[in-house]
Amino acid sequence: MNFIHNSWDLKYRDPFGALPIGSLVTLRIYGQNLSSVQLRTLFNENEIFYSMSPSTSLYMWEVTFKIPDSTGILWYDFKFETGDDTFTYGTKGNRIGGDGQIYKDIPPSYQITIYESKRTTPEWYKQGIMYQIFPDRFNRGSDFNLDCFPKTTILHPQWSDSPHYYKNNTDNIEYWDFFGGTLAGITEKLDYLKSLNVSIIYLNPIFKSKSNHRYDTGDYMSIEPILGNMENFETLMEECKKRNIFVILDGVFSHTGDDSIYFNRYGHYPGLGAYQSTESPYYDWYSFTHFPNDYTCWWGIDAMPDTNELNPDFQSFIFKNHDSVIRHWMRAGVSGWRLDVADELPDPFIEGLKTVMLEENSGSVLIGEVWEDASRKVAYNQLRTYFSGFELDAVMNYPFRETFISFVMGTISARIATLTMMSLYENYPREQFMGNMNLIGSHDRCRVLTILGEADEHSNHERYRLNKDQYHLAQKRLKLLSLLQMTFPGVPCIYYGDEAGVQGFEDPYNRGTYPWGKEDEELIGWYKIITEIRANNTVFQDGSWKPYESSDDLFVFERRNEDTCCLCLFNRSLKAVHLFQHQTFSECEGISLLTGKPTPMNPVVIEPLSYQIISINL
Amino acid sequence: MNFIHNSWDLKYRDPFGALPIGSLVTLRIYGQNLSSVQLRTLFNENEIFYSMSPSTSLYMWEVTFKIPDSTGILWYDFKFETGDDTFTYGTKGNRIGGDGQIYKDIPPSYQITIYESKRTTPEWYKQGIMYQIFPDRFNRGSDFNLDCFPKTTILHPQWSDSPHYYKNNTDNIEYWDFFGGTLAGITEKLDYLKSLNVSIIYLNPIFKSKSNHRYDTGDYMSIEPILGNMENFETLMEECKKRNIFVILDGVFSHTGDDSIYFNRYGHYPGLGAYQSTESPYYDWYSFTHFPNDYTCWWGIDAMPDTNELNPDFQSFIFKNHDSVIRHWMRAGVSGWRLDVADELPDPFIEGLKTVMLEENSGSVLIGEVWEDASRKVAYNQLRTYFSGFELDAVMNYPFRETFISFVMGTISARIATLTMMSLYENYPREQFMGNMNLIGSHDRCRVLTILGEADEHSNHERYRLNKDQYHLAQKRLKLLSLLQMTFPGVPCIYYGDEAGVQGFEDPYNRGTYPWGKEDEELIGWYKIITEIRANNTVFQDGSWKPYESSDDLFVFERRNEDTCCLCLFNRSLKAVHLFQHQTFSECEGISLLTGKPTPMNPVVIEPLSYQIISINL
Repeated sequence: MNFIHNSWDLKYRDPFGALPIGSLVTLRIYGQNLSSVQLRTLFNENEIFYSMSPSTSLYMWEVTFKIPDSTGILWYDFKFETGDDTFTYGTKGNRIGGDGQIYKDIPPSYQITIYESKRTTPEWYKQGIMYQIFPDRFNRGSDFNLDCFPKTTILHPQWSDSPHYYKNNTDNIEYWDFFGGTLAGITEKLDYLKSLNVSIIYLNPIFKSKSNHRYDTGDYMSIEPILGNMENFETLMEECKKRNIFVILDGVFSHTGDDSIYFNRYGHYPGLGAYQSTESPYYDWYSFTHFPNDYTCWWGIDAMPDTNELNPDFQSFIFKNHDSVIRHWMRAGVSGWRLDVADELPDPFIEGLKTVMLEENSGSVLIGEVWEDASRKVAYNQLRTYFSGFELDAVMNYPFRETFISFVMGTISARIATLTMMSLYENYPREQFMGNMNLIGSHDRCRVLTILGEADEHSNHERYRLNKDQYHLAQKRLKLLSLLQMTFPGVPCIYYGDEAGVQGFEDPYNRGTYPWGKEDEELIGWYKIITEIRANNTVFQDGSWKPYESSDDLFVFERRNEDTCCLCLFNRSLKAVHLFQHQTFSECEGISLLTGKPTPMNPVVIEPLSYQIISINL
Repeated sequence: MNFIHNSWDLKYRDPFGALPIGSLVTLRIYGQNLSSVQLRTLFNENEIFYSMSPSTSLYMWEVTFKIPDSTGILWYDFKFETGDDTFTYGTKGNRIGGDGQIYKDIPPSYQITIYESKRTTPEWYKQGIMYQIFPDRFNRGSDFNLDCFPKTTILHPQWSDSPHYYKNNTDNIEYWDFFGGTLAGITEKLDYLKSLNVSIIYLNPIFKSKSNHRYDTGDYMSIEPILGNMENFETLMEECKKRNIFVILDGVFSHTGDDSIYFNRYGHYPGLGAYQSTESPYYDWYSFTHFPNDYTCWWGIDAMPDTNELNPDFQSFIFKNHDSVIRHWMRAGVSGWRLDVADELPDPFIEGLKTVMLEENSGSVLIGEVWEDASRKVAYNQLRTYFSGFELDAVMNYPFRETFISFVMGTISARIATLTMMSLYENYPREQFMGNMNLIGSHDRCRVLTILGEADEHSNHERYRLNKDQYHLAQKRLKLLSLLQMTFPGVPCIYYGDEAGVQGFEDPYNRGTYPWGKEDEELIGWYKIITEIRANNTVFQDGSWKPYESSDDLFVFERRNEDTCCLCLFNRSLKAVHLFQHQTFSECEGISLLTGKPTPMNPVVIEPLSYQIISINL
């Protein structure tokens, strides 16, 4: 028997991908000698069977139907009879979409994401290049002042030292170590960011907190004194505005710090915190099993008590009130938020927050920290509705990072990388796919160079540095990976220092300081070139994306908009690839965007561990 | 039978105490019905028996003999016959001197210290008031500069934080914590020290080193960059000179740091260190069991490799050469050295060093770190000759500290305190006794207030602070103890911050910062008064010392010189003491040095936990 349904091929599913509510969709399946074919759909536990009809093409069955008028996921698969037997057809076991296969029982279903088409994501965001800054580690500004440091903090006088966790006997961090980066320090480096064509800064938390990462908010309304004050923040916003740089803050709402106005475990703040009394105005923000020492907290870390995000008072404080946290900072010039652990925030909370954001600035964006395919993320047994149209504009694209690091490192083939990305392309509404925050590094993962250089896992992680050969390999791989990032759909995000040669294993070593004066100038030069290509060629910002099949080592895709078509080829292997008679473009003329010179198209030669970005003269 | 020899009574031993070589000494013993008495002396394992003769006093036997012409200890005891039996007589079991007792066999002997009377200790030293500074913790000067900090050091931004050892998994200190005190910071506070009548500063090590205590010398010839530079040192010396303040440095020669020019374990220094090669010019300074990783080190701490102090090249470097360490710093204005772990330095090393010191400055002083009675200290099975006249001018008087803290705390009686001090008085040459560095606190012991306030040993030592009542008690006790220190023979040394209310358990908590702006002003006021009394009354600097018997709770002594006699009384109890008909002074008129007013002498009233310093009008 030979049956074909390929959800990525318009012959079988039209239109492609996620659909606005109430859309019509046509599904087709190819199969010989069938007496009847049924489409089974499942939406919110509601099963519907559609009889499919033979189409005008031989052996092709089809049905056109209207998808539901509400957001969510419509699952579908096929059931058919052949002779005496009954079969089903669904996606392959990995639920990745595309080609499927025959089953005897209920198969893994195909996914159609249904969203409400509320608005398009703002151009400044989709067209942007983002730069993530961990504020303590980026730049010690000229305003640096020891007096701003609270008690029992420790400072690394030497900017080039390694971060280190100073723990007590019970393995808790007792002394937070700081390097003393400041907001003014960021302001002083805006021209450097501009030279990298950065147009969006994503700041890890900057509110008053005890730790150096500041995910344990102490006061949502004030700037951490070590980083500066409100004036420094305003100056940063003004100077960003002058340079057309937009600022996104980290919104950490699933928990607060225990050392906060709200919980006030140590009595460091005035007023009555939830830990101090059941009469505290903040008591209902938290969940105590046994007051005061047993309470729900984030990942069991008692320094981060969980908030009850559905508590009306908490929601008022965070977003609803006239002077809410969200409104306060947006009025101060912030253009977006990155929602920490979005999967731990209930949908109504995210929806409410998003509504307020749009009230304050219709051109703002909300990005979620989601680590998987966000279209079908299930958290706490519930399908999340991030992409319903009421919530997130984008998510941090960790699948992008994992896929392409694996590709460059040779652990997955170009084909698997293509399938993985196609699956996201299909499942994400287009605005979200084009708004994906495509990251290579972040404060939650090893530094990319350390990975790409095949650092010794069994070494002393604090001190380990790649040797010269390893570094050279890592640098070449990073060039490939970063160019892929700059040409891929979605908003590229550079994790501070990745462009300057910073190495480091996992937290805290991935949060080392930016190496002012000791940068890898070659790499920075490279980043200037590739961000320039990204910024100056709109096709990479809004063009459609189409991958091409190739060999294991060669990842190829096309970006295309009305007037441009670019072919992007990435050869991860140590051998040159000669691509003869590329099916589509072998007759065309091409210009390399990297050299500005004509490129032979037949064959297209891609050197070892190298790439070609070719603007095709169609 | 009734026999009496009391080495502290001129009737029995004349002259008192330690004697210059070749002196005549008369010893007497009282005993009835004896047929013969022999004096047995032992000097350098050489036993001599002298027959004693009946003296002009009834039942008193005597002998006058010449003590040896070389330095050391002459031990003596008595042997006599009574009827059919033979007995001996020696000191009591504690070898403290004074009264003795009868034995059957060889008894514990009495001690006569024999020294060579080379010179008297300089007046500036004996008349001085000393102040010990742990440089990192005294004052962050206006020249403080983060750039001076080496890699992998950490700084406490907040001056008021607690010191802390940041250790690695093997319990070694991995990150030395600094507060950033500087030499310029000391210079800026000289007027404060002057207000405490300080005339000598003893600085803990200031040479370039890895640790915050700097007992692991990295380079004997340079100032630790965190503390400043040579210019800062010179300024400090100049400003001290302007104020008649003398400076004593810490001389750490029994070991170096492993991270040093000389050992160079980590290759941080140019040149070839002993650890790096057996060809190193410094190789013979150290003792390797197995090169390079097994070597002799101080107390098993491998960061502090022991030096071979008898190595000629080492001695040349440290003192003999024209540009030796000792000469270099003395020419820069240093007036003395405190020798770290003097008991681990061979006598010839100390003698050679002392000779060079006197060549450079005949008015210099050498103080040894010795924790016990230094006149008879045995180290490595050898009697040390610190007080021969060729070595130490003085030692750190830890017995003083232990005795009087114990007295104030009620764990020993005034009588035991008296005996302990009398024993030192007898065994130490007078110049050394008058030059004793009388300390209450140091960088090697708990802060005195913490002890006096009866701090809870089982508490968190880093965070513990006395409660109000405890502090009040500690403060009163410290007043008594510090007044005793200021009136006692020897040079009082104030450990920085003890006068300002600093608390802290053992190392590192005894090395907290001086609390600028948060001083205990009452205590500082007290120290100004008592140092004034010390400085303005020469009787406390050079007067003879004579203790008086009293009750358990009352410690009494007299200081007397040609024109003054002072009676010093210290009541440690919580009851007032009324001292009627004091044997010597009940008929005299007295003036309180603390109030400047006449004091009733019969009775002398000493209030609870209080004191009287009475100038007697003889």
